[in-house]
Amino acid sequence: MKELPVQIQLNPEDKKHLYEQIYEYIRQEIRSGNLLTGEKLPSSRYLAEFLQISRTTVDMAYGQLVSEGYLEARPQRGYFVCAIEELYDIPASGEGRKQHRGEGLFAGRPGLPEAKHTKDGMECGKAYRYDFSPNAIDMSLFPYATWKKITKNILVDARSSLFSLGEPQGDLALRVTISRYLHASRGVNCRPEQIIIGAGNDYLLLLLEKILGRHIPVAMENPTYKRACMIFRSFAYPVSFIPMDENGMLPDALRKSGAQLAYVMPAHQYPTGIVMPIGRRTELLNWASEKEERYLIEDDYDSEFRYRSKPIPSLKASDQNDKVIYIGTFSKAIAPAIRISYMALPAGLLERYRKNCSFYASTVSRIDQTILNEFIQDGYFERYLNKMRKHYHLKHDLMLRELKDLEKDFEISGENAGLHIVLTDRKNRGEEALRACAEDAGIKVYPMAEFYMETPPCTKRKAAVILGYGALSPEEITEGLRLLKAAWQK
Amino acid sequence: MKELPVQIQLNPEDKKHLYEQIYEYIRQEIRSGNLLTGEKLPSSRYLAEFLQISRTTVDMAYGQLVSEGYLEARPQRGYFVCAIEELYDIPASGEGRKQHRGEGLFAGRPGLPEAKHTKDGMECGKAYRYDFSPNAIDMSLFPYATWKKITKNILVDARSSLFSLGEPQGDLALRVTISRYLHASRGVNCRPEQIIIGAGNDYLLLLLEKILGRHIPVAMENPTYKRACMIFRSFAYPVSFIPMDENGMLPDALRKSGAQLAYVMPAHQYPTGIVMPIGRRTELLNWASEKEERYLIEDDYDSEFRYRSKPIPSLKASDQNDKVIYIGTFSKAIAPAIRISYMALPAGLLERYRKNCSFYASTVSRIDQTILNEFIQDGYFERYLNKMRKHYHLKHDLMLRELKDLEKDFEISGENAGLHIVLTDRKNRGEEALRACAEDAGIKVYPMAEFYMETPPCTKRKAAVILGYGALSPEEITEGLRLLKAAWQK
Repeated sequence: MKELPVQIQLNPEDKKHLYEQIYEYIRQEIRSGNLLTGEKLPSSRYLAEFLQISRTTVDMAYGQLVSEGYLEARPQRGYFVCAIEELYDIPASGEGRKQHRGEGLFAGRPGLPEAKHTKDGMECGKAYRYDFSPNAIDMSLFPYATWKKITKNILVDARSSLFSLGEPQGDLALRVTISRYLHASRGVNCRPEQIIIGAGNDYLLLLLEKILGRHIPVAMENPTYKRACMIFRSFAYPVSFIPMDENGMLPDALRKSGAQLAYVMPAHQYPTGIVMPIGRRTELLNWASEKEERYLIEDDYDSEFRYRSKPIPSLKASDQNDKVIYIGTFSKAIAPAIRISYMALPAGLLERYRKNCSFYASTVSRIDQTILNEFIQDGYFERYLNKMRKHYHLKHDLMLRELKDLEKDFEISGENAGLHIVLTDRKNRGEEALRACAEDAGIKVYPMAEFYMETPPCTKRKAAVILGYGALSPEEITEGLRLLKAAWQK
Repeated sequence: MKELPVQIQLNPEDKKHLYEQIYEYIRQEIRSGNLLTGEKLPSSRYLAEFLQISRTTVDMAYGQLVSEGYLEARPQRGYFVCAIEELYDIPASGEGRKQHRGEGLFAGRPGLPEAKHTKDGMECGKAYRYDFSPNAIDMSLFPYATWKKITKNILVDARSSLFSLGEPQGDLALRVTISRYLHASRGVNCRPEQIIIGAGNDYLLLLLEKILGRHIPVAMENPTYKRACMIFRSFAYPVSFIPMDENGMLPDALRKSGAQLAYVMPAHQYPTGIVMPIGRRTELLNWASEKEERYLIEDDYDSEFRYRSKPIPSLKASDQNDKVIYIGTFSKAIAPAIRISYMALPAGLLERYRKNCSFYASTVSRIDQTILNEFIQDGYFERYLNKMRKHYHLKHDLMLRELKDLEKDFEISGENAGLHIVLTDRKNRGEEALRACAEDAGIKVYPMAEFYMETPPCTKRKAAVILGYGALSPEEITEGLRLLKAAWQK
């Protein structure tokens, strides 16, 4: 036990309370290293007697030090100095991320933007030379300089209003821009008043729960975007998984499910890559129109990337009865860091939002909204999209060319849009076998089973794997597929 | 009816489908102004016959134009050109805001940061020369140049990782910085792993609902921060309002309420300005420790601004049994536009967050997190806080000096911290009378009744009004109070 008491100089004349003087002295001793981790302090009784003060005063000082993490009280044993560095210990790099991945979440689309950077590294103890992640995107052509320039210009004439809290729905200027963009590019006919801007799709779904209310039965495609399903389940919404044919969700099964809400990705279903044809869209719109409380959520994710024929207008574009909740994001088309998504609400739900939820403060800063607005208005967004479309198109065509050799073994689908392709095995070797075989060659592929929320009986579907190419360079695609083909054709 | 058909040149050899050619022709006619708003188009039957094509083709073209908002279908009458400018009509300035305010939401603290700018303007048809809003803050000393410099430097060496999606809980670097800041300034002893960064307090409460689960009975102080109450009610959490004495929430009433969760503002209760003494804090902590499922939410709003004596450590600092959910924000201490709040979770809830909610993507961009992190780490935050504390201190002292004349009529409380003062009328003239009288003199004051969720019987409390001074200059305070005193002392 350190000879602590001898050193303390209490000054009853000091404005500081005695307990504070003791507290500060001991804290200083610990911070300066005079008291070392694990050292025992004198008991409060002993210290009180020694200093001729009340024991309560010492207890208060010790209590404060315990609550601030400098001391630890061990029952029956006394007070000991804590290892305070521990407080700020940074976990070994990647530890947090590994933990996150360990929870089986990689299927969440915004999950692996950095997959490219980890492809030569270790993951879950496995080394991959090439990771065909369907989530990864290519940021190499992003106009960083333009983004910086816009940011700089905005901040140069920043007024305090830019630093104030904006409208709960988002800045009107950006909502006008988004409504124009949606009209021009996706055929969506919605007014700026119907648009809610939020920090990501997940946040918009949280808000939507507050608008729609409780216990709404939801129907989802199967396989589907797992993160959305986890979110609905976190709302305690009962989720039904509706089987799909080559045109998408089956309307009869949807009708039988009793769902009020159907979550669909008509532009390029994730992960199957199905583009829903107009007939099926009409059937789903009809389903929604049959009852007042029915709505469709259109997740228009990656609709920006379509390589053959004209872009297909959104489901919302055909939404004559105002039944479609349209959700889009700039996370994929610009960058995952841009935490800006938007939701266009049908009139009925807009009214409910205004009545019940419009007090929720905006989750996107006005500065970020202003930067994005200028990026779109000045035409940079369109140029960047066009560039990326060409860029991904080249990779897409290269994928198809390189995969030609596999056509006798695999059916290729989900092409012509998005950033991934689906290979369905004609020999039905089993997804796990295909994955393991690829892994042995250093290639990460994504078995379709991982996108099913409830795995259907094996007899129902053929083995399929997903290959994303967004973040890989043409050389990496060529070399990765060479290794993959060699592995699978052994 | 426009002689439209004559002009259309259909080309069957064109790669474009006929319906698309019709669609594009009409769209171009509308866009170029050849077809004007309200003009009737030929019926689809007529046009099909004229062009010698199938009527379905024309219907498809018309349908597309309707869904894109170019045409409007009027039953029994035909198709008419829409006024497309309407789509992008910007509501008259301030309309959106007025609507928002009209919903009685001004009591929400982050509500009126721009009050200063509107004080000479019209609001709800009333003109105010000086608005003593308790929500408004002073941005005049904000180090815009520093913020810009940091932003610029960060973007200069921006790597793509900065544009990628960060950890769901927030960037570790910022969480480490926040945990250090909380430790140093608020005595909070929490590890970076316990901190969740989110886009505003409202978002963090939404996330907390997912962590805590359903139907959690909540206790709130009364009067209180109304927005939090509205949020709890939007969760369908039953909310009880607990009476307060001069030390804050009454523990016996809290115990009787059956609440599992108590939302308190110990540092400077909003709006009463009560600073909860240690004894009451201990009582509340004891209440929480009695049952496993009980927790306290500590909203540590505006704890940064304390003008007499040392800052009081947070409730969380005394939280030996890990029962306090600590919520703080940078909206007041930096700027409302900085949509960054943080929540420190007790170990038990952290586990539940990791298990059930950690898939929710972060709502704050990595760029914003990095800027804030540097702003704090480089010492700018501390300097700015010190400057603002002095600045607000001067205004606070000026308020007290100027209000001295009113002491015979009013009891003054809630001083020494925060950005507002409470005046309780000794003559009990009635809040509405005081407010109306001030309004006639062009002064906006805030009756206490507006902060009560359920107005207690008049006999229970004296009339009180709230005067905020954050955004007013010393000259404005002096002149505003001169007018107010003259009005009330008439």
